[in-house]
Amino acid sequence: MEMTPPGRPAASAPDLRIEGCTALVHGVGGDEGPDGIGFVEGVDIDVVDGVISRVGPAAERHERLTGQPSDTLAPREMLDGRGLLAVPGLVNCHTHAAMVLFRGSAEDVDVHTWFNERIWPMESNLTERDVELGALLACAEMLLGGTTTFADHYFHMDAVARAVEVSGIRADLGWACFSSDGAAGRERGLDFALRQRDAAGGRITTSLAPHAPYTVTEPDLAAIAQMAREHGLPVHLHAAETLEQTHASLERIGATPVQVLERTGLLDVEVLIAHGTGIVEADLPLLGRAAERGLAGVASSPRFYLKAAHSTTPIRALASAGVPVGLATDGAASNGDLDLWASLEVTSLVQKSLGGEADPTWMTSRQVLHHATTQSAQALHLAAASADGARSDVAVGRLATGYRADVALLDLSAPHLQPVHDLAATLVHAARPGDVRHVIVDGRVVVRDRRLISIDVPAVLAELRPRLAELTRRDGGRIQTYEP
Amino acid sequence: MEMTPPGRPAASAPDLRIEGCTALVHGVGGDEGPDGIGFVEGVDIDVVDGVISRVGPAAERHERLTGQPSDTLAPREMLDGRGLLAVPGLVNCHTHAAMVLFRGSAEDVDVHTWFNERIWPMESNLTERDVELGALLACAEMLLGGTTTFADHYFHMDAVARAVEVSGIRADLGWACFSSDGAAGRERGLDFALRQRDAAGGRITTSLAPHAPYTVTEPDLAAIAQMAREHGLPVHLHAAETLEQTHASLERIGATPVQVLERTGLLDVEVLIAHGTGIVEADLPLLGRAAERGLAGVASSPRFYLKAAHSTTPIRALASAGVPVGLATDGAASNGDLDLWASLEVTSLVQKSLGGEADPTWMTSRQVLHHATTQSAQALHLAAASADGARSDVAVGRLATGYRADVALLDLSAPHLQPVHDLAATLVHAARPGDVRHVIVDGRVVVRDRRLISIDVPAVLAELRPRLAELTRRDGGRIQTYEP
Repeated sequence: MEMTPPGRPAASAPDLRIEGCTALVHGVGGDEGPDGIGFVEGVDIDVVDGVISRVGPAAERHERLTGQPSDTLAPREMLDGRGLLAVPGLVNCHTHAAMVLFRGSAEDVDVHTWFNERIWPMESNLTERDVELGALLACAEMLLGGTTTFADHYFHMDAVARAVEVSGIRADLGWACFSSDGAAGRERGLDFALRQRDAAGGRITTSLAPHAPYTVTEPDLAAIAQMAREHGLPVHLHAAETLEQTHASLERIGATPVQVLERTGLLDVEVLIAHGTGIVEADLPLLGRAAERGLAGVASSPRFYLKAAHSTTPIRALASAGVPVGLATDGAASNGDLDLWASLEVTSLVQKSLGGEADPTWMTSRQVLHHATTQSAQALHLAAASADGARSDVAVGRLATGYRADVALLDLSAPHLQPVHDLAATLVHAARPGDVRHVIVDGRVVVRDRRLISIDVPAVLAELRPRLAELTRRDGGRIQTYEP
Repeated sequence: MEMTPPGRPAASAPDLRIEGCTALVHGVGGDEGPDGIGFVEGVDIDVVDGVISRVGPAAERHERLTGQPSDTLAPREMLDGRGLLAVPGLVNCHTHAAMVLFRGSAEDVDVHTWFNERIWPMESNLTERDVELGALLACAEMLLGGTTTFADHYFHMDAVARAVEVSGIRADLGWACFSSDGAAGRERGLDFALRQRDAAGGRITTSLAPHAPYTVTEPDLAAIAQMAREHGLPVHLHAAETLEQTHASLERIGATPVQVLERTGLLDVEVLIAHGTGIVEADLPLLGRAAERGLAGVASSPRFYLKAAHSTTPIRALASAGVPVGLATDGAASNGDLDLWASLEVTSLVQKSLGGEADPTWMTSRQVLHHATTQSAQALHLAAASADGARSDVAVGRLATGYRADVALLDLSAPHLQPVHDLAATLVHAARPGDVRHVIVDGRVVVRDRRLISIDVPAVLAELRPRLAELTRRDGGRIQTYEP
């Protein structure tokens, strides 16, 4: 377990101490997998310069037990964590934040209709300000539910960066491009990624963001892989979203979408693959080899796969191949909301039923928490494990010394959580966004007593309301055609 | 639409007026199915003697629009519904409320292990007081989330009846029996059902509750059917819980569990079948004929079916056969919590993917709301449609004149619900228990501003805590053996 030994004071006085909480920790008994997830009671979490400097026995408890004053230095700010459970802030590995604008406006349709008759026509109405308002609303929703990092793949990304800056959340941002945008699309994505890298005091990381192998040609994917190598940028894209896409790709070009990634060089750079419900057996060794080098990760958002009547991400096979799988919500226009707690539970339920052979003993709550913490950070290349990567200075997903201080504190006293026999099961099968009481990102308290400090949500909604009729018009063309 | 015409005042002054809300109503355009679900703005809901006496244009709005005073009588109590959405209180069609005691204590196991090594050994530890504490906690959880009626199937049911009385919720209660209990078990169930029928000011209805065809013999099921006929009581039981049970039954006795119900006379009385994921084609005409006579209904709690890697309730086939299917949570030891909003969403997701042929256009949000309101009330024999049944005086599931005043008022202003393009989609895919702000049961406000008035939850938990170690012991035998 990675707790700081008692009696070893932090080098400088903490900026913040979360006092006396129970904490979800990793590496118990030296085990880095799901069985190494444990819960320790009565700890303080100290923060210096946005980084966790100590997770150790609560000073108050130390004094009570030993009769001696604690040798930890007094913090500048205290947050009472007594009776609360601290977990690493959740990581939403794939979303389109501003699509909250279209929440509930593309319902009960197949994926062809969803793209061609709903979303892509409506997206042609979006202004940069619309995207900013949508992103602000999304950041509010995510922070209030304990999500502290999200990977975003969209347009007008400077507007999303401003929402990240204002809201206090952490994000990895990529400006989407299609081959139909020409070279200008790729250049815009690169320019954005270089300009905004490390913005918002380091809370913003950036990626290149080709849309998908069915909308970006192989030469263009290869050009983007080359850009990624040259500039040390990861790539975030949709691939093998459905089995239908994989079969269509095999029929059209004799290769699966993952094989296309491999032959265009995208498995030789840090790559995050969204969805992957169409990943097939032939893809596993390719992804496994890339993952071995710390390069490939997959994001799974299982609610939409059920809603669209697709198959689901083959997490068990990916785990066997050593490929990290992080959890995600996709956009709210497909998923209904940005509730990652629901993704935790649905991942458990769906993997038991549909993740390969039906097996209720697989995807235990600790396994889900492993995906929601360590593996989600790995999928975003924000885990300590990628310590020699471009992002070695930003590690999230654990409550341990040296990790960024991204923390959600849950109040487990509500009737729907009681009694607690198993904290892991409580988190996966009963916890909800509303159980999150305080949220800290990069050492700063951004949600206190269930109130978001940074965003004036009513003002955002008041500005948005008169735009809604215009946003949902579907008579002005579409930004792209879905024919994978 | 069943709104009371404007200008027709209620006969007596209302006890309560919910003022100026938006309301989910049924029968729009004369359509009694899912397409007849609509939302009307600016209405008052008046209540007299626990019954809705008027759903009509808000008095305030009437005066503003016409310049004339409204001719409705002033109510004794007003509840400000402006900016809120009123929906019929949710109906949990099958649960074991007190099993919240075992929440998170039977995880990641197959159904055989779940029964034989976890639940049935632990249930042998339960005292009547434990069941009362568990039921109080469950009632608190359900009411806070807008569930106003539940169908409970358990032991020590007088304790559950006391929790219903105290909490202010509505319930249909049945004392479970096995054939291993002998005739005494059936008699205890009948005695309870007759004694508690119409208790708690009419908020309690009762049923006979044989456990299941695999734990109750055919002669005993026939005896219970006879009791039900004789005393005008419905029957609530588990049947065809899994396809495995159906196949085992066919192998053992050459009949499906539903065919057993039919030949023991249980399809000739009002019957509520829990789960039914093992309902097969041969069962549909039998259930359809019973449903035609207003007798048979099915309760579906799809989260546990995924968790246990079972199939799911074939709602599409049941709907085609005319069988009402209500929504449920099962107990929290299988489902994690008693969140019916999650059952609404998972029903939508699972029916699209697994409810027969994969079809994302089926089980629309309005279809889900149809199951959550009208069909749930029908499954419990608490709908107006069964007007000549034993329970013709208690109708729930609609906001309309003559129905019991069971209402949940939702605040849709939180970021995860905004913007709203489609209220039905918002309710099914984004609403959560925490969005419920006020709850009214039988005309009485029991949750106000998210606070439950009737139960002291901390006191319940304080009494429960020292019992937990004893409750989860598994060394004292088991109440039954699962071998369907």
